[in-house]
Amino acid sequence: MRYQLYYWPSIQGRGEFVRLALEEGGASYTDVARRGDGISSMMSLIDGRRIKRPPYAPPFLKAGKLVIGQTANILLYLGPRLRLVPRSEADRLWVHQFQLTVIDLVKEIHDTHHPLSSQLYYEEQRAAAKRYTDLFWRHRVPKYLGYFEDVLEKSGGPYLLGRRLCYADLSLFQVIAGLRYSFPKRMKRYERKVPRLVALHDKVAARPRVAAYLKSKRRIAFNEMGIFRRYRGLDR
Amino acid sequence: MRYQLYYWPSIQGRGEFVRLALEEGGASYTDVARRGDGISSMMSLIDGRRIKRPPYAPPFLKAGKLVIGQTANILLYLGPRLRLVPRSEADRLWVHQFQLTVIDLVKEIHDTHHPLSSQLYYEEQRAAAKRYTDLFWRHRVPKYLGYFEDVLEKSGGPYLLGRRLCYADLSLFQVIAGLRYSFPKRMKRYERKVPRLVALHDKVAARPRVAAYLKSKRRIAFNEMGIFRRYRGLDR
Repeated sequence: MRYQLYYWPSIQGRGEFVRLALEEGGASYTDVARRGDGISSMMSLIDGRRIKRPPYAPPFLKAGKLVIGQTANILLYLGPRLRLVPRSEADRLWVHQFQLTVIDLVKEIHDTHHPLSSQLYYEEQRAAAKRYTDLFWRHRVPKYLGYFEDVLEKSGGPYLLGRRLCYADLSLFQVIAGLRYSFPKRMKRYERKVPRLVALHDKVAARPRVAAYLKSKRRIAFNEMGIFRRYRGLDR
Repeated sequence: MRYQLYYWPSIQGRGEFVRLALEEGGASYTDVARRGDGISSMMSLIDGRRIKRPPYAPPFLKAGKLVIGQTANILLYLGPRLRLVPRSEADRLWVHQFQLTVIDLVKEIHDTHHPLSSQLYYEEQRAAAKRYTDLFWRHRVPKYLGYFEDVLEKSGGPYLLGRRLCYADLSLFQVIAGLRYSFPKRMKRYERKVPRLVALHDKVAARPRVAAYLKSKRRIAFNEMGIFRRYRGLDR
């Protein structure tokens, strides 16, 4: 099966959680919108004239006739097919639950620079962003990352399920990498509290397929249009 | 199977999406935290000393030995068991994708009164809430509800899948009911643009099990501690 991933071509964004799974899973895929007229092909699926069940927004995955939207739902589908989750229902539900919690955090990370609306520029909501970000680092980062760290302690590590990698580990890697990019000062101070998360990040980054991907042109660099943005006013 | 639902006892909140599925599905369940020392039982599962895979937050469902967290994940699990989703993988993925989009909207609805942080009172972020809410109604409500309306048009209605009810319809009902409660003036003006959603709301409310539930004491009333809050300053 050759998969078609549809996502904005110039950012990592939510598509990156899918890209990482496709890469680590050794899948054959096309990153459609990064080719020729791929964006118009993407938009024509969203506007819904061509299909009965249009996705709400990118990313979405085309797998044969199936069009699957919502990042965590795509990973739910790909997980067993790319051997990035065990077979049992209990394991799958647990990994999906964890992935949904990661995605909740990702939304809050996005809101650090866009607390009032994604329709306004960051520059139009800078004061609110500063206040949001301070409270985010005081209350939310410790709650989310503390939870992830606890879970890794219970699993025995280095991964969510212990010794076996699953797709949610790839997403955790991306979150740690993204927080380091966006908030280098804050993250430098905070990291010592979550050694297992840092170790997981390093372990994932060193996996041959992930390492090859990160060095390739397929990996888009972090930038100030994506979820993880580096704004000096928000770091300190 | 008797299910145990764990959720805050005095609000509808995210737990309500699960309660509606349990009720319409005719499930046998206990709303644990609304009984005796149920809250301490809930907290002891979250603090993780008793279980290896603790949920991040309520709601979560206990089904035999399984403890399942994340609202959409609970519905993914319950759907086939309560016959609230068809058997095919394509249908299940589609309904789950749709449910995840509803949950995304629910988060944004919550943020209308808490745009900066859930750690602050509404009264401490009133100006930001007003700005958020105005932009939310200008850009986000039309995008989300317009999408849901389009999907109902494509399905032929009255439900997401056409003539057969699924759990995401119950969640859509709750969103419409909640928006009516929170923003009576805005919603009154907006509703004429989404007649299929309004019809779905009425159709769900009239189903015998849902109607009986809504009249019962098991249904907690909307109030200003939940997701859907009525603040005069935000409606107009």
